[in-house]
Amino acid sequence: VATPQDSGSDLVASLEELSRADCLGLLATASVGRVGLLVDGRPEVLPVNYALDGDTVLFRTAEGTVLNQAAFSVVAFEVDHVDEATRIGWSVMVQGGATYIGDAIDPTSERLRQLSLITWAPGRRQCWFRVDADKITGRRLRVTPDAL
Amino acid sequence: VATPQDSGSDLVASLEELSRADCLGLLATASVGRVGLLVDGRPEVLPVNYALDGDTVLFRTAEGTVLNQAAFSVVAFEVDHVDEATRIGWSVMVQGGATYIGDAIDPTSERLRQLSLITWAPGRRQCWFRVDADKITGRRLRVTPDAL
Repeated sequence: VATPQDSGSDLVASLEELSRADCLGLLATASVGRVGLLVDGRPEVLPVNYALDGDTVLFRTAEGTVLNQAAFSVVAFEVDHVDEATRIGWSVMVQGGATYIGDAIDPTSERLRQLSLITWAPGRRQCWFRVDADKITGRRLRVTPDAL
Repeated sequence: VATPQDSGSDLVASLEELSRADCLGLLATASVGRVGLLVDGRPEVLPVNYALDGDTVLFRTAEGTVLNQAAFSVVAFEVDHVDEATRIGWSVMVQGGATYIGDAIDPTSERLRQLSLITWAPGRRQCWFRVDADKITGRRLRVTPDAL
């Protein structure tokens, strides 16, 4: 496979904006993303396992963690996949309000907490959050043969 | 290789805090990270190629991009690596002030702009930024045999 490294002058990189539908399709293919949130006025970015329900992102954390500060605030949720060898990849960012649903008893929250959302980190992590997308953006990085 | 999936009751996950030195060592092994910053009062998380010089993180962007809003603000810079099959991995977050050095003529800025920092996205991307770490944190996710 030709890579940018071995034939730099013959391949050119391009960055393509993705549709909302493409973004949601890509989000459905992964299981680890990153939550960007403000903590004491400073941005933090923390990896999480997640699940997707329509355009709602779900993640879980344990009591007392920094991620609990997502409640009542707008957060960014980012997923990407870049192949180091070929330099081909994509990234998707969801922005929206984060809501704590760990103990909510409405039917929707109870349904969402039944979704399969396995967390790889240890501990009970029963503090569920939903992020309702008000903006979804994404880009695909391609490498194509240079114009003739 | 045993994975959490095929012998859930025999393996337990653990999360270990990493030292600053370990974090810097891991940052030196990767080339793609994510900048978390505030844009119009909302967090955004955007992937970038980066270089490391001591505990200074360098990234480049093009004129007019959202990443230019990092100037004069505190940002988070995150790198992680998680193996989906084994669920073993690590994450590191650097927090610090971001400074635009794209046209700075002091010797340090001129030296930093000579570092190898290849950007995979297209375009000239001559807007260099440095992020000076005032806080570096990281965690390693392990999966180990359960206690006997």
